[in-house]
Amino acid sequence: MSKIPFTKMHGCGNDYIYVNVAQHPIDDPKAATIKWSDRHKGIGSDGLVLIGKSSMPEADFTMRIFNADGSEAMMCGNASRCIGKYLFGKGLTTKTEIRLLTLSGIKVLYLHITDDIVESVTVDMGEPILEDATQFIASRGLDMGTFVSMGNPHFVIFTENVDQVGETGRSLEYHPAFPQRCNIEFAHIEADGSIRTRVWERGSGITQACGTGACATAVAAALTGKAGRTSQIVMDGGTLNIEWCEDDRSTEGRFFQKNHVYMTGPAAFVFDGELEQ
Amino acid sequence: MSKIPFTKMHGCGNDYIYVNVAQHPIDDPKAATIKWSDRHKGIGSDGLVLIGKSSMPEADFTMRIFNADGSEAMMCGNASRCIGKYLFGKGLTTKTEIRLLTLSGIKVLYLHITDDIVESVTVDMGEPILEDATQFIASRGLDMGTFVSMGNPHFVIFTENVDQVGETGRSLEYHPAFPQRCNIEFAHIEADGSIRTRVWERGSGITQACGTGACATAVAAALTGKAGRTSQIVMDGGTLNIEWCEDDRSTEGRFFQKNHVYMTGPAAFVFDGELEQ
Repeated sequence: MSKIPFTKMHGCGNDYIYVNVAQHPIDDPKAATIKWSDRHKGIGSDGLVLIGKSSMPEADFTMRIFNADGSEAMMCGNASRCIGKYLFGKGLTTKTEIRLLTLSGIKVLYLHITDDIVESVTVDMGEPILEDATQFIASRGLDMGTFVSMGNPHFVIFTENVDQVGETGRSLEYHPAFPQRCNIEFAHIEADGSIRTRVWERGSGITQACGTGACATAVAAALTGKAGRTSQIVMDGGTLNIEWCEDDRSTEGRFFQKNHVYMTGPAAFVFDGELEQ
Repeated sequence: MSKIPFTKMHGCGNDYIYVNVAQHPIDDPKAATIKWSDRHKGIGSDGLVLIGKSSMPEADFTMRIFNADGSEAMMCGNASRCIGKYLFGKGLTTKTEIRLLTLSGIKVLYLHITDDIVESVTVDMGEPILEDATQFIASRGLDMGTFVSMGNPHFVIFTENVDQVGETGRSLEYHPAFPQRCNIEFAHIEADGSIRTRVWERGSGITQACGTGACATAVAAALTGKAGRTSQIVMDGGTLNIEWCEDDRSTEGRFFQKNHVYMTGPAAFVFDGELEQ
């Protein structure tokens, strides 16, 4: 039995266990995730994130992410922000622009630092996939929302009542219009221009926050003329700022690509611990 | 900001954060409990347990226990077993019989040790209070159960279907027969003689295990002739062995008192951590 140091972090309430597997390899990540994610008999988390060194020159570090049920996910925006804070905060890098290799490709993180502390992180979430899915869905009897893929499918509904997320979200996830099932966002434009959003995640139900869901909501708001290219998405677990970049541009030495969605938000250390593998 | 070491432990899935406040005092236990018990943004737990040194010669250590909402509880059987394992495992005592001062008086813990590891702990849970509450309740239209107080009120129903705990438990908690509300146990005598029990805890809903609920169920089974004085109570989170002691006796140098209820069960370390107060 070896002791494995870990760190618990959250981004807008989406909480994972982070382990530096360059120093402490995990023999069986699936089994470890199931055991450690248990909220009563384990550490308790939404899943496990393994941070490794990249053997490819194109990336600085690697990220693997496992859901609480042991299944491996492609990527997670909230977790990738936490990785930025982890790497800098633990002294594993001095870079403020980090290239992270994930199962859905290389993701670029931009750290925003005040007094040597990572205050927030911007993640390039890539381009939305719009196609004519909305039209396809309307033909199947769902005309009240906008379909946006951010790699995973989202259906965004603007409504006066975002609290219908429980009942309506559950039934829409399994609507025949979505053969792969779907994440459902309920959004409302507030008086101050921010977008109050509640999320029904495919396979998980109501969650505190969803990075791709925030991106999809901002894109849907811009597409339907309800907001500009920049939105503040206020979810149960916290707020994310989303920019759907209109043109290529450089800002503070950083290059932002046209049509990419940039998500900026907080990342929080909770505690360090160690347990036996 | 000072670093506070803590240990996460569970007894039958009832999980608390344990802090040795003799070494690391907590300034505001209520605020700390609310913050740290949060299952997404904190450590995540059913509450916080503070272990201190006793200034009274009658007790070895003190225990204070706070629920996740910050309210202070009197006592918790599952937590007191964990305290036994904590004190011995961390080298804070070499005693195997520990007197613990709680808000409901001094509780005696008996540690069962194999190869220097605490395998299980017996707790003297005191005498059940029976009075004629069952008759009182029957007069109010509830004749299907047995009322047992273990300091807190329990209503034990023997049934073929312990899975009705959700719906029936919720409605019975607020039944007018219980002006202080009530914990509800649904129990079934299995073929092997063990008692499958599911618990609806007052104010919490379905829980993985309840120490006083297991004691009340064993007492109700003995009272109604469904079991003897010793029962194995199988709850969602684990199994507790309950003896409702028939006569004063000494066993292995330990004195057991007539009419007291002795609960024996597991206690598990999960991990050690530290965070900023």
